[in-house]
Amino acid sequence: MSLLGVDVGTTGVKAVVFNADGVILGSGYREYPLLYPGPAGWVELDSEQVWQATKDAIRQAVAQAGNRDPVEALAISSMGETAVPLDADGNPLMNAIANLDTRAVAQAQRLEQTLGQHRVFALTGHPVHPMYSVPKLMWLKEERPSLFARLWKFLCAQDFSAFRLGIKDPAIDWSLASRTMGFDVVRKVWCSEVLQAAGLSENLWAKPLPAGEAIGTIDPKVADELGLPRTVVIATGGHDQPCGCLGAGVVKEGVAMDAIGTVDCITVAFAQPVLTEAMRRNNFCCYPHVAEDLYVTVTWSWTGGILLRWYRDTFATEEKSVAERMGVDVYDLIVAQASKTPTNLFVLPHFTPTTGTPWMDTQSKGVIAGLTLNTTRGELVRALLEGINYEMRLNLELLKEAGIAVREIRAIGGGARSRFWLRLKANMFGVPVVALQVTEAACFGAALLAGKAVGKWATVGDAAQALVQVREVFEPDETERRLYDERFALYRELYPTLRAWLHKVSGLSR
Amino acid sequence: MSLLGVDVGTTGVKAVVFNADGVILGSGYREYPLLYPGPAGWVELDSEQVWQATKDAIRQAVAQAGNRDPVEALAISSMGETAVPLDADGNPLMNAIANLDTRAVAQAQRLEQTLGQHRVFALTGHPVHPMYSVPKLMWLKEERPSLFARLWKFLCAQDFSAFRLGIKDPAIDWSLASRTMGFDVVRKVWCSEVLQAAGLSENLWAKPLPAGEAIGTIDPKVADELGLPRTVVIATGGHDQPCGCLGAGVVKEGVAMDAIGTVDCITVAFAQPVLTEAMRRNNFCCYPHVAEDLYVTVTWSWTGGILLRWYRDTFATEEKSVAERMGVDVYDLIVAQASKTPTNLFVLPHFTPTTGTPWMDTQSKGVIAGLTLNTTRGELVRALLEGINYEMRLNLELLKEAGIAVREIRAIGGGARSRFWLRLKANMFGVPVVALQVTEAACFGAALLAGKAVGKWATVGDAAQALVQVREVFEPDETERRLYDERFALYRELYPTLRAWLHKVSGLSR
Repeated sequence: MSLLGVDVGTTGVKAVVFNADGVILGSGYREYPLLYPGPAGWVELDSEQVWQATKDAIRQAVAQAGNRDPVEALAISSMGETAVPLDADGNPLMNAIANLDTRAVAQAQRLEQTLGQHRVFALTGHPVHPMYSVPKLMWLKEERPSLFARLWKFLCAQDFSAFRLGIKDPAIDWSLASRTMGFDVVRKVWCSEVLQAAGLSENLWAKPLPAGEAIGTIDPKVADELGLPRTVVIATGGHDQPCGCLGAGVVKEGVAMDAIGTVDCITVAFAQPVLTEAMRRNNFCCYPHVAEDLYVTVTWSWTGGILLRWYRDTFATEEKSVAERMGVDVYDLIVAQASKTPTNLFVLPHFTPTTGTPWMDTQSKGVIAGLTLNTTRGELVRALLEGINYEMRLNLELLKEAGIAVREIRAIGGGARSRFWLRLKANMFGVPVVALQVTEAACFGAALLAGKAVGKWATVGDAAQALVQVREVFEPDETERRLYDERFALYRELYPTLRAWLHKVSGLSR
Repeated sequence: MSLLGVDVGTTGVKAVVFNADGVILGSGYREYPLLYPGPAGWVELDSEQVWQATKDAIRQAVAQAGNRDPVEALAISSMGETAVPLDADGNPLMNAIANLDTRAVAQAQRLEQTLGQHRVFALTGHPVHPMYSVPKLMWLKEERPSLFARLWKFLCAQDFSAFRLGIKDPAIDWSLASRTMGFDVVRKVWCSEVLQAAGLSENLWAKPLPAGEAIGTIDPKVADELGLPRTVVIATGGHDQPCGCLGAGVVKEGVAMDAIGTVDCITVAFAQPVLTEAMRRNNFCCYPHVAEDLYVTVTWSWTGGILLRWYRDTFATEEKSVAERMGVDVYDLIVAQASKTPTNLFVLPHFTPTTGTPWMDTQSKGVIAGLTLNTTRGELVRALLEGINYEMRLNLELLKEAGIAVREIRAIGGGARSRFWLRLKANMFGVPVVALQVTEAACFGAALLAGKAVGKWATVGDAAQALVQVREVFEPDETERRLYDERFALYRELYPTLRAWLHKVSGLSR
């Protein structure tokens, strides 16, 4: 038997078929465009396009896997927050409103005024924000009443895909349900207090279930279309971050996943829900993991590895042409120049329009401080990486202060190919950083959930432990760690010191 | 007739022969090394080496000028503060203690405790600092008593050179005398209150005289050695900054000279001495100009054009090779890339070990703030120039608040070759910036003083007005000026906001 994991993201969908040992048998990928149809801040996705791309990706993965090891079950990992309104016939009433969309600002504010940030967070594990699905549906009710009158369900990407695959009574797993900001993350039911305040019925959402639960079999016509057996079981999947965690073996308290891509994102697993003010004021969410008996929180810096791309495009034209000539990776060339010891430079990596956690500041800016006439390229390169790591360490420290400690980090994503960066992270975070063999963590997590639904393993936690393979472990070097402890104390002061000033820069007339 | 102007600097001496129209007939230049003979902070010059170099430079200039237009008079411009102890035979008792030398910290502190910063400044126009000659001589008295017992005179570079040229009763002009921190800049006599507090007799210094006064004729033997007529009159010269001002035609109240070199230095002329707290707390000195009836103050940023060199060496290897291949100036290539409109970046140009005025901060560091992923090389180049200009504008604003307004800036130095930079300065300072034909301003100023001593002109002010030629005038563009006014308000807040934090960075363990 084999298992199919599908990951529906913001700009594309990936489908991967794994055998029972976690080996990839086939994979497919399709992209779709984000749509900007209306006023500034509106961002949509055409659900029919997404569904078409999903089918194409699955068909490609299944075809590549061949017939020797037929798919027994599938599950879907997906982006959060994005949702599409369907009518009673299951047809979209309009495009899906994407997570990036900010049209529901007024609705979010009203909810905040009615219940208060603290109350919403204590119930749902998410601070009030227009990106979540509940304010989006409030907007639909208020601004598109005739359309809302015909609404049957408001489905997120996971439940919509499963619906199209054949699950006529839509179901959503707890983790993705949480990303609506309308789910009670402790009692694990739709949160009547928030939904009532929002003026929304529970019936408008899919049925919440644990991840990895069988919810039906595939529609025979769809199965034929995709080249799948008609017996394929569909399981509840999960939100992409916890699915990625599961696929990276982050299935124990105190273990975290660092997805080092253009964005740097650390997801931490812990045992008991933490819904305190120390979490909320740092914009740390708290919701069920897809692995058993755990919760996760997600912290990130929008300015991640993309900062190296900025450096490459701004300062490394020479390295670019050398890399092309020699057929090597330009980032390898750049990072090879990085100085070998901790710098006395401090990069505030707020180069993107929003910072990420803990600040969620839309008016901050990037800063490089501590420069002298002796500052070298190599120091600057290292300082850029240090800056990203300082910002992520800040998140880890604030989590620790909120009661969530991290004792091991498992690295995935493009940046995890760099041993230099992983070693630097170990020294700056002060915990072991583990490089994995896994390349498609979210799809693998979904496949593990599918396997549980058909009884391949009792818990996905044990399965992940057994199947995820470690490539290398980077232990912190104590000397560098001490130097970084000293420097981090200064880093931590930089943004609070400059915040008000940076906001003024952001407000300059042009 | 022709006139010889000599400029004795920290690392070299220049001699230039001018005809009566200010045209250069010949010039010579010789270097000498700064010596670091002792503990950290000790910096010396071998006065015999300096004298030898001075003779060589003069001989070269005179030889190049030829015989058609013999030299009638000479005067010496020199660095300030540096002084050498001579015995009764006129021989150095030790090396000259250079202005950069900081051995007299304890003596300066004691003077500050005895008289107070405010009192010393009100009398001498200079804040107490170990770089000045008075604390240096206090050090000699305390730390080298047997040597001090044999001391005849403690001569600065101007009076020492004139002494060696034949002036047996050493004389010093008011401007250079001021740089000892022992001169009463209002009454224009040695300041008995400061010298008494320092335990130093007036007799240990040269006789103070106005600049441009005949003090004797050249020693015939020296004249022969240098190829000069035995009739050459020696005049009092001046401190190099005011001599440069004179040579640049800065001879009216409200006019300033911007010497745009590795250091950016603005010297401002004004009519009445300003010895207030508003001057002292910003480290603005106040002392007699070498032009009649004026005073000057000197403001500077140690990080001047050298910041472009840092950019060149750190980020512009490609421009460097293109420049070499094409035979053009690499800085022209770099500045040609600068963006065409004001940036929203803020560079705190504290890249050197000391900032310069107004802060004189030895623990600050360079900062680049306001970065985004869209920040380009061109913006960074412009921002570096803007940063230097912001820092100099800060000095101009603080001077204005102290009652010294600037209405015109005359630019000299390497940076004055860049029309882009001059236009930028006009827009950022909000006053016309005048580019001059003058290339050897300090030597020309000294030559003008020599001319006055032999009656070529009644005042050096009128002579400079008549002889200094303007190359181009850059008037401020009102649109850019407004944008820079808005940005300068933010720039002004940056350092006070970050100062304490930057000092902590400076104190990092390694």
